[in-house]
Amino acid sequence: MKRISAILALAVSVVLLTACGRLGSSGVGTTSSTKTKTSIQTTGQTSDDEYQGVIQNGRYKTSKARGLTKDQNTNGANLKSFENGLQTISQKQFATDDYIFQEGQYLKKATAQNWLDRKSKSNASGLNPEDNGQTDADKRNPDYLQAIEEQDYMTQDGNNLKLGGMTIGLAMNQVDYYQKEEYGATYETKISHDKMVSEGKSMANKVVSRMRKTEGVGNVPIVIALYEQATNDSLVGGTFFAYGISKDGGKTINEWHDVNEANYVLPVVGSAKSGNSSDADSFTNFKNNVQSFFPNLSGVTAQTHYKDGNLSGMNITINTQFYSETEIKSFTQYLVTAANKYLPSEAAIEITVQSTDGTQAFVARKAGEKSFYSHVFGSY
Amino acid sequence: MKRISAILALAVSVVLLTACGRLGSSGVGTTSSTKTKTSIQTTGQTSDDEYQGVIQNGRYKTSKARGLTKDQNTNGANLKSFENGLQTISQKQFATDDYIFQEGQYLKKATAQNWLDRKSKSNASGLNPEDNGQTDADKRNPDYLQAIEEQDYMTQDGNNLKLGGMTIGLAMNQVDYYQKEEYGATYETKISHDKMVSEGKSMANKVVSRMRKTEGVGNVPIVIALYEQATNDSLVGGTFFAYGISKDGGKTINEWHDVNEANYVLPVVGSAKSGNSSDADSFTNFKNNVQSFFPNLSGVTAQTHYKDGNLSGMNITINTQFYSETEIKSFTQYLVTAANKYLPSEAAIEITVQSTDGTQAFVARKAGEKSFYSHVFGSY
Repeated sequence: MKRISAILALAVSVVLLTACGRLGSSGVGTTSSTKTKTSIQTTGQTSDDEYQGVIQNGRYKTSKARGLTKDQNTNGANLKSFENGLQTISQKQFATDDYIFQEGQYLKKATAQNWLDRKSKSNASGLNPEDNGQTDADKRNPDYLQAIEEQDYMTQDGNNLKLGGMTIGLAMNQVDYYQKEEYGATYETKISHDKMVSEGKSMANKVVSRMRKTEGVGNVPIVIALYEQATNDSLVGGTFFAYGISKDGGKTINEWHDVNEANYVLPVVGSAKSGNSSDADSFTNFKNNVQSFFPNLSGVTAQTHYKDGNLSGMNITINTQFYSETEIKSFTQYLVTAANKYLPSEAAIEITVQSTDGTQAFVARKAGEKSFYSHVFGSY
Repeated sequence: MKRISAILALAVSVVLLTACGRLGSSGVGTTSSTKTKTSIQTTGQTSDDEYQGVIQNGRYKTSKARGLTKDQNTNGANLKSFENGLQTISQKQFATDDYIFQEGQYLKKATAQNWLDRKSKSNASGLNPEDNGQTDADKRNPDYLQAIEEQDYMTQDGNNLKLGGMTIGLAMNQVDYYQKEEYGATYETKISHDKMVSEGKSMANKVVSRMRKTEGVGNVPIVIALYEQATNDSLVGGTFFAYGISKDGGKTINEWHDVNEANYVLPVVGSAKSGNSSDADSFTNFKNNVQSFFPNLSGVTAQTHYKDGNLSGMNITINTQFYSETEIKSFTQYLVTAANKYLPSEAAIEITVQSTDGTQAFVARKAGEKSFYSHVFGSY
């Protein structure tokens, strides 16, 4: 997800909700430098398509069950794309102008952990199936659910915020990685797409029904977003494949919507898929042009993200071994020239130049914009 | 130095100089996608106050003696600020619209190495003084010159580029670090500011005289910029203190100009200097506000850069331990709000959010601009 934005200097200062009739659609809140008794503030908004976040008593309101996954043996790219994508799905139901984002407060950590665990005598609420005692890949019951995350969408209620809606993401496995013995070799149980979808939808109804019983949730709309984890060897995260909405206090999902997303890695290695071949060609032209710039440029790779078959974003990482500041400045200028010339014109683009010292420079263009922003990280 | 810029999409494609009457002041060059026989191209320009760089046969023309310093025992911040500042000094003589930047091509690596070394029977061209055999800090002859760097400024000559001017930076020591025996303890010889200045100016004349004899240099203006290295324990680089110009083929500097720059680190530790106290207070307010946002924010530090007593730039680094994407997004929005509210309004600002995984987000405002640009680094 790209989050690039230049904001007006008008949109300064902490937006005190007491002084705010409605959340401004331009991100311009009422400025107040005087202290009021109300302790709820928001982070401010850098772009229309971003939610403001909740600050309480001067601190960001962190989640009760942040980034909870079944085990740590997962692809790091999954967590980033899962959390990011969840906000994007939420925008279909909760407009960024009308709702304020709050990290999940209703699903407690211990509860979420029980839900992620297998069902058992001691854990009746487990959403993953009981252990059937088998260890063969095809005979055992795999873990279908890998991670769960709640996001709250708040509306203003006088001087306070009240819950206006909720999104819960369920990250489903296409492959369940398991050990037959502790610290043993890792085996894989593959899960068919159909099975993953049906398990996800079934769990979604259970989650809705349980959340309705959770104190404070009430009858707000609940969105359940289903995410397919990328495999552990993937260089890109997974994608959402469906979301359902429970309205008017319903205990199940009223309506399901398909989400058509895909992620790829460029350049294509072996028989891997590349998405649209014209986009892949654009990247190849860019890569070839850029790689010849310096004698010692070591790698140019990209992640691409598709929505409904159209390229929506491309993240390019360039690894370099050169250090001179003037070289990096010149290279960054050249990247802008080459990006304008070769890269697809509609999609969001993020290019970072990395060295062993960290990020040296970056070039980016938001979706729908015509100009690239570039920055070389400096030091005095 | 801040190098933030959004360029027009018009300024696309490699600017072929054959098709270019004069270097456009807006960075908009003539676009040509057809191949010509001319192999000289430029990198393109992302901002009016940046030089375009030279590309020859599709490759960036790297320096003959890149980043050459007397030894590796130096503060890394020095090299960055030395190279960057050299381009800033050059702009006083060579306008970015009229000249194209080329990494130094005339001073060969072996020659530069000899100049950096001590004068001796085997090295008559050494700019540093002869070893007098003493090892006491106050009795020995210190190394005054630590690093040397050439930058070329090119103009168009028909289908080719010709040398239009040259800047050579001399990085001078305020402290010379030395060992009495190989791999032994490090000792320091302090050098007075006056001595550093007089040695630097004397070396500048020698360098000009030698460059005039170098094939291809001819009578172009030569700028010699004198830089004072920061000490090895400094968290910020050094500063330029003077530059001189040799015009019309002269063999010495015709005129010297003082440069009034200073760098500081915030928050102030112990009895260190802070620059302008109002700027330091602004930073402290920003820091206090931002540090309370998350329970586990570990550090907020800044480098400040002053020109003629005025704050020209502030680079803020925030080290974090949180990882959630939504947390980083909310934090970045909050940073923009806090930066608008607390940080000095005129200076260039760069804020980077770092974690052990690298740069997570950044917020920046170019000098003289009113709005902040923000970006959270994403992953699909």
